[in-house]
Amino acid sequence: MKARVFVTLKNGVLDPQGRAIGQALAGLGFDGVEDVRVGRMFELTLADGTEVSTIEEMARKLLANMVIENFRVELA
Amino acid sequence: MKARVFVTLKNGVLDPQGRAIGQALAGLGFDGVEDVRVGRMFELTLADGTEVSTIEEMARKLLANMVIENFRVELA
Repeated sequence: MKARVFVTLKNGVLDPQGRAIGQALAGLGFDGVEDVRVGRMFELTLADGTEVSTIEEMARKLLANMVIENFRVELA
Repeated sequence: MKARVFVTLKNGVLDPQGRAIGQALAGLGFDGVEDVRVGRMFELTLADGTEVSTIEEMARKLLANMVIENFRVELA
């Protein structure tokens, strides 16, 4: 089975990478870029029947830094 | 307006980061992790009326490395 885990910075956490990308886009001539937030996406191929709770535990233990990040699990 | 750009490695491109994460998950006791692929997600806040074609151009020019990556645009 396939699952996706999306990891994003919590609101209020500064995203210097996103800010740099926003400035680079403006430098390339793209107007109207108000904000850029960068996140990670994990595409997991798992044994059939893996519970969502197990995937959430993978995210809490390894994939996401729970101090500054949120995660969302999506079954593909 | 909000848009998301998902950048993933093309099929066949080796993902050492994903492999390392897969091994780490196994080491944490998670069985049944067959494969892990890591991608990036960009959450863009753009001026209203920004065309999808413009967002695709941002991806081609900056957000994705078109030699080894694919991208997908999603309007939020």
